[in-house]
Amino acid sequence: MKRLLITGAAGNLGKLARARLGHLADVLRLSDISEMAPAGANEEVVQCDLSDEAAVMELVKDCDGILHLGGVSVEREWKLIEAGNITGVYNLYEAARAHGMPRIFFATSNHTIGFYRQDQVIDTTAPMKPDGLYGVSKCFGEAMASLYHSKFGQETALIRIGSCFEKPRDRRMMATWMSPDDFISLIECVFRVPMLGCPVIWGVSDNDVGWWDTSSAKQIGWRPKDNSEVYRAEIEAASDCPDADAPQSMYHGGLFTAEPIHK
Amino acid sequence: MKRLLITGAAGNLGKLARARLGHLADVLRLSDISEMAPAGANEEVVQCDLSDEAAVMELVKDCDGILHLGGVSVEREWKLIEAGNITGVYNLYEAARAHGMPRIFFATSNHTIGFYRQDQVIDTTAPMKPDGLYGVSKCFGEAMASLYHSKFGQETALIRIGSCFEKPRDRRMMATWMSPDDFISLIECVFRVPMLGCPVIWGVSDNDVGWWDTSSAKQIGWRPKDNSEVYRAEIEAASDCPDADAPQSMYHGGLFTAEPIHK
Amino acid sequence: MKRLLITGAAGNLGKLARARLGHLADVLRLSDISEMAPAGANEEVVQCDLSDEAAVMELVKDCDGILHLGGVSVEREWKLIEAGNITGVYNLYEAARAHGMPRIFFATSNHTIGFYRQDQVIDTTAPMKPDGLYGVSKCFGEAMASLYHSKFGQETALIRIGSCFEKPRDRRMMATWMSPDDFISLIECVFRVPMLGCPVIWGVSDNDVGWWDTSSAKQIGWRPKDNSEVYRAEIEAASDCPDADAPQSMYHGGLFTAEPIHK
Amino acid sequence: MKRLLITGAAGNLGKLARARLGHLADVLRLSDISEMAPAGANEEVVQCDLSDEAAVMELVKDCDGILHLGGVSVEREWKLIEAGNITGVYNLYEAARAHGMPRIFFATSNHTIGFYRQDQVIDTTAPMKPDGLYGVSKCFGEAMASLYHSKFGQETALIRIGSCFEKPRDRRMMATWMSPDDFISLIECVFRVPMLGCPVIWGVSDNDVGWWDTSSAKQIGWRPKDNSEVYRAEIEAASDCPDADAPQSMYHGGLFTAEPIHK
Amino acid sequence: MKRLLITGAAGNLGKLARARLGHLADVLRLSDISEMAPAGANEEVVQCDLSDEAAVMELVKDCDGILHLGGVSVEREWKLIEAGNITGVYNLYEAARAHGMPRIFFATSNHTIGFYRQDQVIDTTAPMKPDGLYGVSKCFGEAMASLYHSKFGQETALIRIGSCFEKPRDRRMMATWMSPDDFISLIECVFRVPMLGCPVIWGVSDNDVGWWDTSSAKQIGWRPKDNSEVYRAEIEAASDCPDADAPQSMYHGGLFTAEPIHK
Amino acid sequence: MKRLLITGAAGNLGKLARARLGHLADVLRLSDISEMAPAGANEEVVQCDLSDEAAVMELVKDCDGILHLGGVSVEREWKLIEAGNITGVYNLYEAARAHGMPRIFFATSNHTIGFYRQDQVIDTTAPMKPDGLYGVSKCFGEAMASLYHSKFGQETALIRIGSCFEKPRDRRMMATWMSPDDFISLIECVFRVPMLGCPVIWGVSDNDVGWWDTSSAKQIGWRPKDNSEVYRAEIEAASDCPDADAPQSMYHGGLFTAEPIHK
Repeated sequence: MKRLLITGAAGNLGKLARARLGHLADVLRLSDISEMAPAGANEEVVQCDLSDEAAVMELVKDCDGILHLGGVSVEREWKLIEAGNITGVYNLYEAARAHGMPRIFFATSNHTIGFYRQDQVIDTTAPMKPDGLYGVSKCFGEAMASLYHSKFGQETALIRIGSCFEKPRDRRMMATWMSPDDFISLIECVFRVPMLGCPVIWGVSDNDVGWWDTSSAKQIGWRPKDNSEVYRAEIEAASDCPDADAPQSMYHGGLFTAEPIHK
Repeated sequence: MKRLLITGAAGNLGKLARARLGHLADVLRLSDISEMAPAGANEEVVQCDLSDEAAVMELVKDCDGILHLGGVSVEREWKLIEAGNITGVYNLYEAARAHGMPRIFFATSNHTIGFYRQDQVIDTTAPMKPDGLYGVSKCFGEAMASLYHSKFGQETALIRIGSCFEKPRDRRMMATWMSPDDFISLIECVFRVPMLGCPVIWGVSDNDVGWWDTSSAKQIGWRPKDNSEVYRAEIEAASDCPDADAPQSMYHGGLFTAEPIHK
Repeated sequence: MKRLLITGAAGNLGKLARARLGHLADVLRLSDISEMAPAGANEEVVQCDLSDEAAVMELVKDCDGILHLGGVSVEREWKLIEAGNITGVYNLYEAARAHGMPRIFFATSNHTIGFYRQDQVIDTTAPMKPDGLYGVSKCFGEAMASLYHSKFGQETALIRIGSCFEKPRDRRMMATWMSPDDFISLIECVFRVPMLGCPVIWGVSDNDVGWWDTSSAKQIGWRPKDNSEVYRAEIEAASDCPDADAPQSMYHGGLFTAEPIHK
Repeated sequence: MKRLLITGAAGNLGKLARARLGHLADVLRLSDISEMAPAGANEEVVQCDLSDEAAVMELVKDCDGILHLGGVSVEREWKLIEAGNITGVYNLYEAARAHGMPRIFFATSNHTIGFYRQDQVIDTTAPMKPDGLYGVSKCFGEAMASLYHSKFGQETALIRIGSCFEKPRDRRMMATWMSPDDFISLIECVFRVPMLGCPVIWGVSDNDVGWWDTSSAKQIGWRPKDNSEVYRAEIEAASDCPDADAPQSMYHGGLFTAEPIHK
Repeated sequence: MKRLLITGAAGNLGKLARARLGHLADVLRLSDISEMAPAGANEEVVQCDLSDEAAVMELVKDCDGILHLGGVSVEREWKLIEAGNITGVYNLYEAARAHGMPRIFFATSNHTIGFYRQDQVIDTTAPMKPDGLYGVSKCFGEAMASLYHSKFGQETALIRIGSCFEKPRDRRMMATWMSPDDFISLIECVFRVPMLGCPVIWGVSDNDVGWWDTSSAKQIGWRPKDNSEVYRAEIEAASDCPDADAPQSMYHGGLFTAEPIHK
Repeated sequence: MKRLLITGAAGNLGKLARARLGHLADVLRLSDISEMAPAGANEEVVQCDLSDEAAVMELVKDCDGILHLGGVSVEREWKLIEAGNITGVYNLYEAARAHGMPRIFFATSNHTIGFYRQDQVIDTTAPMKPDGLYGVSKCFGEAMASLYHSKFGQETALIRIGSCFEKPRDRRMMATWMSPDDFISLIECVFRVPMLGCPVIWGVSDNDVGWWDTSSAKQIGWRPKDNSEVYRAEIEAASDCPDADAPQSMYHGGLFTAEPIHK
């Protein structure tokens, strides 16, 4: 690629992507609503609020790939979610349509289906069961991607990210963890496959424990390599086992299912 | 019921509901963004913009049922759809949560799945394939209803309305038509079943032709009685048969699939 | 048939069958653990405890069809259920095997799946979710029938009876009701079809409301004719609507799901 | 239509179609390998061997619809089946491709799936289980239709005909019977629907007994009206009930499953 | 755990568990109908007949986990199966209910589905097809576990054990073998997962050959490590290949499908 | 085996099989329509046109296994495909039936389903979507194998071969590649499993990228070992990435979907 846009570049995943994806494009265009580190070699830094239609239109120009990590990524008050994940997503897809439809890696979330129980294994066709306003906003994003694919041919990888951290942080993350290495290889696969379409793919490592049928990853050639099991002793030592009926034991979405509506 | 709120009361479906649902509640509270006919006996008329959070909070108060027909119901520019069908829906569910969670009949749409082909029969679990921004906004509404059901127990009937008119207006509506009588009986069923949950139900009559597996209607006891077939001669006389690859022949959503993004 | 054995002949369904099935066989052999009315023309009356192995062996002799309505049909203490529905069923199948494997109509029950929610439509392959010891005993009976079919070729119709009364008695029975006429025609179909196999079939009328996909009835040619809807006004007048979270509103099995273990 | 080609016009179904489909086209072009009655008004009669490539090319010219009933329709020696149903079908599709791709009603057969058991209900997506060389040739025809649809856009209705006679002739036909009236209305639906695609549809009346999920008929608007049940007494009087393990009791395909390979 | 009850402790699996599960609980309470080796350190030994209600009530007291390997584990006369696997299971669940509902590992069996053919791959939702009275009794056990989960919240892992021996003993066991190491790790997973629910899980190693979709193991984090393939040469040298239509070649349940009813 | 017949022995797969399968039988009987290298030790060489009924009858005599690689294996004019893959297959199955029904490894093809899109993962039960006359002929072969299995008990492994070469040759083959070693081990599994039945199995290595659910391979104990990923750098260096809407990017069948009908 000539230019890969990374939104949400000031966040954890964004920083990781910035540090490790230089080989994917001649230039990385980095964007966030917050301030970012200054541009390095082969970088462009553009501060941008996704809810600003004109700014997003400008941001996407000249890019031939988009790694969309931006917007709100946890449960927040509605106004913030609406600005970043509803208005912002509309702006992004309209900008992509105006600028040659660069392929999009869209960071959606397990919180679109967070109210399934942990004794249920689901695949990517299971009807949505969002666990909060954030999850609802990601359902919206998935629907928007579907529309632009059906109507205009825009390609998007809908990556339902589990929990992408250096290592899992609690027992639930044993099942939802995606390692940084696996995250990077997943991005590579998305931008490498000749025809992407608009698939939903679980963003999760090859953990022993899990609730998601990850077979759709095969169509883009992604085979994650890491396994949360190497951290089990550490995780179990760090905290007591929660009760069977605690939200973090019960639901795919864990504690998100117990969050109130933020005001 | 003591008081049934009807949103979108100035629209065609709203007028129909107003005229025929007096028996369902002591009082009908009628609401629309547009002007409505003055309140008759056992009626309250409240003009209200659904995107006005405080107004919606007041509107829902004291209601023990909501027939939600309001918001935008065709393809329009994004700002209008966002105001009525995104912000408005958030406002509605928050107001319902604050006021005892009256059961909601939510008019969603076949345009949530409009990009399925007419040679595919689908059921209500088929992944969404919206055919426009309007359809995407209804996917959002369905996700919001699911969240409030999972998290708070709010009951909603997600009625994917086909085409509710006095009679079908073109060949595609032979398949998507819901008669006014069937529409009324469907509303009665939604408010009568002891436990509703949050089902998705196709709002379509017992037409000979169709693409939707209507079996989920049985769980609320709705058996539509009318059949578009009685209008076939009339419809076929009125216009030539479209080509097999015309949007109205090809997709569930018909011409919506060919609409541009409105600006 | 020469001789049709009816077990449970002193019960309500048994009496109904006795009164109306004379045309199916030269002789009706009537059996129950309780006393029955004396034998009429073309009848034999044999009092018999199903848990008595030798008695059952004698009972089945010379019969070429069995309408098995006997055993316990409600939630009771375990000893009674075990005697009638476990030991008794083993005895019945062993007797059938010894005596030419007469075709069996086996009255099983919706209580084998009573813990599904009323907003779920299921078919006959849904995994069992019994709602009491009675339901568990019927799961056992279905498994026994399957074994004797696979291993010995014994044919059984596993009829999951909903609620067979003159008319529905409460709101839940609007969905589960099987009319006496439909019950009789179902028995006729079971004994008429050239090859029966060992199908599971819902014993329920053509009610507007319901949670069961009744399509498996078609393979034996049974099309029920009655509809509980004609009793709706009467039912709704007789009692208030239960709460959405009451057992009779929530689960297929209704109040059985709330029964304690009997002691 | 201007001109509808009917192949197999000398057979029973062909004669029926000839007699009753005059309203569908200005001209009926009638073809068979055998002699036919002379052309009447608005008819053309063309004797033609389907295995003759040039003749079929000529036959299809100027037609804008094809009712393909020709070829072998029972179990016969291989050479005959190959000539009519393999070579002939290739010739037909090539001719259609050369001449504007007129829509095709293709008479395929329940013998493509004849080895399913009568205690199994299947839909049109069940893997093939042909019951003879005839059935295999029809599997070939369905595959050919699929190819020409995917590659060239040729539309075909793959109608798996059960047993189309004036009335059912034995107990198995109680389940497989399609009445002449339903056959005619089915043809009308195939040539009337704006977009046909390449669906598989069971050609069977609305019989009480059956093993086929007929829901795919709805997409073309066909709702059969007749029911074999009105002939039950007559059928049952005419012959004894076959044993449960007789081929006509056991399999969808009936006695075809017991036919040897013809030599 | 403070105290883990192991039933069937005198059997092969019981001895294995006794030898290797000391780390799971402060005390192992060992029980069997037969005599066992005397109690070692941190062990309690209680001889007990599962069909003795009072004894089982006492046995379960003070345990916070149950490894239920007891009862009959092969085809036997009905009285023995009923005592151990019907009455005994009722007694066990009632005792668990009375004593705080300790989590249960329930050794159920592939013989619940033994009549599936070896050319069919099934998952845990496939309808039961037991291959003997033993298999029927395990269907009963699975139904009982489901009831106590739905009604009381009792958690059970329904482990359908294939063939757990030091190494596979015949060609069928190449597919059904579970190694002792994998058996032990499976038990650890069952008692470690925060929320267990009532899942069905195949107790089988990671063999190259198999007929069971083992994906449900992932929800409890069990990834078996062993593979019967290392024993192939040894197994194939030991005996001739059975015919394709021999019971051990034909069915999941192998020779059990050919066992008579024991008397 | 005493004698294994290999058809298509002059082709690439045939030569590979000839070179490496000597251990499977006392004698390899090698056959092709073209000339082959002279018979070596334990070999018989028989030139034979599969469309010659008598010759095939003789060819199959005395064989107790058939590796059927013969016939046409790419898109060709119809006459050639019909001779080799239609008539030839009929001749082969009739010869097998006459000579003790030796087990058959039948090389069918991914081109039976070549018109599925590369963003769809399918399993072996997906309805056929052939991508050319060659693919249609293989659908025919699969139907023929099914018939002879249902009617006569003939066992066949229907191996849908992807692309079997020394290494993958283009990006599409990254997904469809089967290594020579995996091909050989697959043949061994087919002739080793006690009961084969008539399964459909994808002939594809354990590649990271793919569109086929390979789980049916487990029932015959085949676990492929190779992975095309080791050739990725080489493949990507050799050619530019095709457009997303190029046939080789779009469909399982790749360029076959764009081939014309050969004349």
